[in-house]
Amino acid sequence: MNILYDERVDGALHSVDRAEFLHTLQTRLPDLDILHAAEDLRPYECDGLSAYRTTPMLVVLPRHLEEVQSVLRLCHERKVPVVARGAGTGLSGGALPLEKGVLLVMARFNKILEVDPAGRFARVQPGVRNLAISQAAAPHGLYYAPDPSSQIACSIGGNVAENAGGVHCLKYGLTVHNVLKVEMLSVEGERMTLGSDALDAPGFDLLALFTGSEGMLGIITEVTVKLLPKPQVAKVLLAAFDSVEKAGRAVGDIIAAGIIPGGLEMMDNLAIRAAEDFIHAGYPVEAEAILLCELDGVEADVHDDCERVRVLLEQAGATDVRLARDEAERVRFWAGRKNAFPAVGRLSPDYYCMDGTIPRRELPHVLGAIAALSAEYNLRVANVFHAGDGNMHPLILFDANTPGELERAEAFGGRILELCVKVGGSITGEHGVGREKINQMCAQFSNDELTLFHAVKAAFDPLGLLNPGKNIPTLHRCAEFGAMHVHHGQLPFPDLERF
Amino acid sequence: MNILYDERVDGALHSVDRAEFLHTLQTRLPDLDILHAAEDLRPYECDGLSAYRTTPMLVVLPRHLEEVQSVLRLCHERKVPVVARGAGTGLSGGALPLEKGVLLVMARFNKILEVDPAGRFARVQPGVRNLAISQAAAPHGLYYAPDPSSQIACSIGGNVAENAGGVHCLKYGLTVHNVLKVEMLSVEGERMTLGSDALDAPGFDLLALFTGSEGMLGIITEVTVKLLPKPQVAKVLLAAFDSVEKAGRAVGDIIAAGIIPGGLEMMDNLAIRAAEDFIHAGYPVEAEAILLCELDGVEADVHDDCERVRVLLEQAGATDVRLARDEAERVRFWAGRKNAFPAVGRLSPDYYCMDGTIPRRELPHVLGAIAALSAEYNLRVANVFHAGDGNMHPLILFDANTPGELERAEAFGGRILELCVKVGGSITGEHGVGREKINQMCAQFSNDELTLFHAVKAAFDPLGLLNPGKNIPTLHRCAEFGAMHVHHGQLPFPDLERF
Repeated sequence: MNILYDERVDGALHSVDRAEFLHTLQTRLPDLDILHAAEDLRPYECDGLSAYRTTPMLVVLPRHLEEVQSVLRLCHERKVPVVARGAGTGLSGGALPLEKGVLLVMARFNKILEVDPAGRFARVQPGVRNLAISQAAAPHGLYYAPDPSSQIACSIGGNVAENAGGVHCLKYGLTVHNVLKVEMLSVEGERMTLGSDALDAPGFDLLALFTGSEGMLGIITEVTVKLLPKPQVAKVLLAAFDSVEKAGRAVGDIIAAGIIPGGLEMMDNLAIRAAEDFIHAGYPVEAEAILLCELDGVEADVHDDCERVRVLLEQAGATDVRLARDEAERVRFWAGRKNAFPAVGRLSPDYYCMDGTIPRRELPHVLGAIAALSAEYNLRVANVFHAGDGNMHPLILFDANTPGELERAEAFGGRILELCVKVGGSITGEHGVGREKINQMCAQFSNDELTLFHAVKAAFDPLGLLNPGKNIPTLHRCAEFGAMHVHHGQLPFPDLERF
Repeated sequence: MNILYDERVDGALHSVDRAEFLHTLQTRLPDLDILHAAEDLRPYECDGLSAYRTTPMLVVLPRHLEEVQSVLRLCHERKVPVVARGAGTGLSGGALPLEKGVLLVMARFNKILEVDPAGRFARVQPGVRNLAISQAAAPHGLYYAPDPSSQIACSIGGNVAENAGGVHCLKYGLTVHNVLKVEMLSVEGERMTLGSDALDAPGFDLLALFTGSEGMLGIITEVTVKLLPKPQVAKVLLAAFDSVEKAGRAVGDIIAAGIIPGGLEMMDNLAIRAAEDFIHAGYPVEAEAILLCELDGVEADVHDDCERVRVLLEQAGATDVRLARDEAERVRFWAGRKNAFPAVGRLSPDYYCMDGTIPRRELPHVLGAIAALSAEYNLRVANVFHAGDGNMHPLILFDANTPGELERAEAFGGRILELCVKVGGSITGEHGVGREKINQMCAQFSNDELTLFHAVKAAFDPLGLLNPGKNIPTLHRCAEFGAMHVHHGQLPFPDLERF
């Protein structure tokens, strides 16, 4: 599916003698694990966005900071691009390798260095899994809040690089709100510290700039994250609706009432049926939409909020509202949601997962528009998403073996993202831009804004060696792509041909 | 007190013909209010840090976006530096004018453009006062959380430029955590949007980078801020201690217990006595330290937390713990704290307000070290600060008319900030670097890190025309200053002579 990408446009195409480079690397770093045989490289061809595949020139798996520094220095010397990779679970192709680049796998940096319950932080290496941090903090009654669905597998370095989200981000923020400090290496292998152990760091907020920069500004070698006290209790309400628009309006009503749920998730009928078939969560399969609303905190507070939310849901037209009777049912309700993607995957040979955000007030409108596009493109779509923060994940079902369906699915997806931009939202909530959405960036930003992004990139990496061709499109690419920048809601929907 | 500053080092010293420049400005913008007579310029010589004064070349007071654009374009054309100013309440000299620069006063952009209770945001012009936002949101049961002590007067543009904090930042975050979107003008007058109306913006997080950048990256023309629901109830506990170290430890105990107070403030004996004399807040004047702990939220939750905090305070050795009986007493307790600076100002002809942050665990140690430095420099110090987030405000008392005291106070202040850096903190919590702390930046950051700051600055403003000489010192300045960079806690305390 490489149709959207053209290395001639975005890639750093330097001619390097692969054999000589490998020999130099082996000579300088005799202890470094290097993969170079075709069969060893194959597992690293893609990340979680498996439709895009490129065989890297070489894969290196360092164990020590000094090895990473030496690799970076050699690559800088030879002008060889470097793509960093953690667990490889990213969904936008941010860790897609380059044919003429080194893939720098940080998975072996997997130590939890410190858990400080009084300071409420954990200091970890970038290869530590997201869930492992919460597990290490659990004996102190603490946890790390951002919880992407891949949290069993994904690593914190990748979470920082992509500014990962999750079900609980509505209340507890994205990765950027939960990271205190990052130790990194510059493209030349120099050590730098972004952020601090204290409240705030003076100068420019490079930590926030770095978070979500998709491996384009430096290599993460250590992360200090905030830990939060575990809520005393958590309860979940499940509400059924006979239309997705009503469910969308209920979301706005809950937030407008001053309640901040721990999670507020929505699924439409296709997703409900798929999840119920797969997980037997106890969902009402006749409903057009369900909302799952989790309330967490201290007992009395949660009890009051549950009652207020129940009333709001009923006023918004819910046909049924159920409070999970016990912890087992609460976990079952969530299991359906957390497995919705694989569940929908059982309905169709292929699906394309989108990740756009919109202002909450636009939910009913955008859901209606997606239904209309679904008819227009003659492709089914299942909606599963973080409704509370307006982060949508429409899953477009298609069969890549039916000629034209892949292209139709991509065109449909592009239209959804442009719709998000048009209503004041953005083309990615938590999955990142990566390779996948680089063309849509041309719709999201003006040339002035893209030029500023490139200038900031050049401040860190003047030669453009770190993860080139991701995240920020060149102006040349945007011109080739032919996208019109959307500004002040004026999007002239472009023709299909450009996809 | 211009002894720390040297325009030859940091300033953008272009030779501009003042008369000709004024004439061109008047011709191009006949409706623009321009101040150029000496007596009209005097009120703009300084901001809230009145010890530093410079007469600006010109002051402009635009009313329309197009005027600001034209001013910026002319300045860019002639390479004239521009310093933006809001209400002028900043405490670090961030809006200190330049002798050869234009002071761009944004105070007339003072309209609240939109309050959206369902979307929970307000869209305002940069000259809108911080408190005015909460007042406009109050009918909807909402408010804007960051509350600097100057909130009656300070404007939101300055809050964004300095990443302002306040008493409630422990629970609700700094300005950067409460801003959704900024409309800005580049140094060349181009309009740009940072952030979005939705959850997250793709590409680099320029909004966070911009927040706290002290007017060096662009001119703010519109700000969209988050609004939060007002807590149902707020209660305050006042605890007295016979040592500041015990009070410091109590702060850590409360946070470690998983309680996040709305505010957690500390005052030492000198500050307590000064505030009590001035405000009659009902403080125990014999106490060596007091803590004020505000708990807010829903009734039952606040009640439980008050009991838990009371037990923790008593276990930490509080000699007395009082819950404010009613709203009147709660307000009185806070009035003492909020007026502590002017109250201390009555004790001495001059005082120097520091603003450093430290990790909470270091509070007892750092308070002890400040007491030792107070003896060493033979200057009294009053401690008033946001204890919960480790943001200290030691007030050094001195008499500028006694030869040598000003220099001693500055040296003492520098030592405190270096101490903050040494224990893993930073040289500013919420007041910014501005002109005041530009030398201490040399201690906080390495040359590599400062070089990166300059490269980022150049990405936005290649000619260095926006607020030059603030926030980020040149490497040349650091070399002249002779500061040793503190890294990994190794600070060779330099000799006094360098001040």
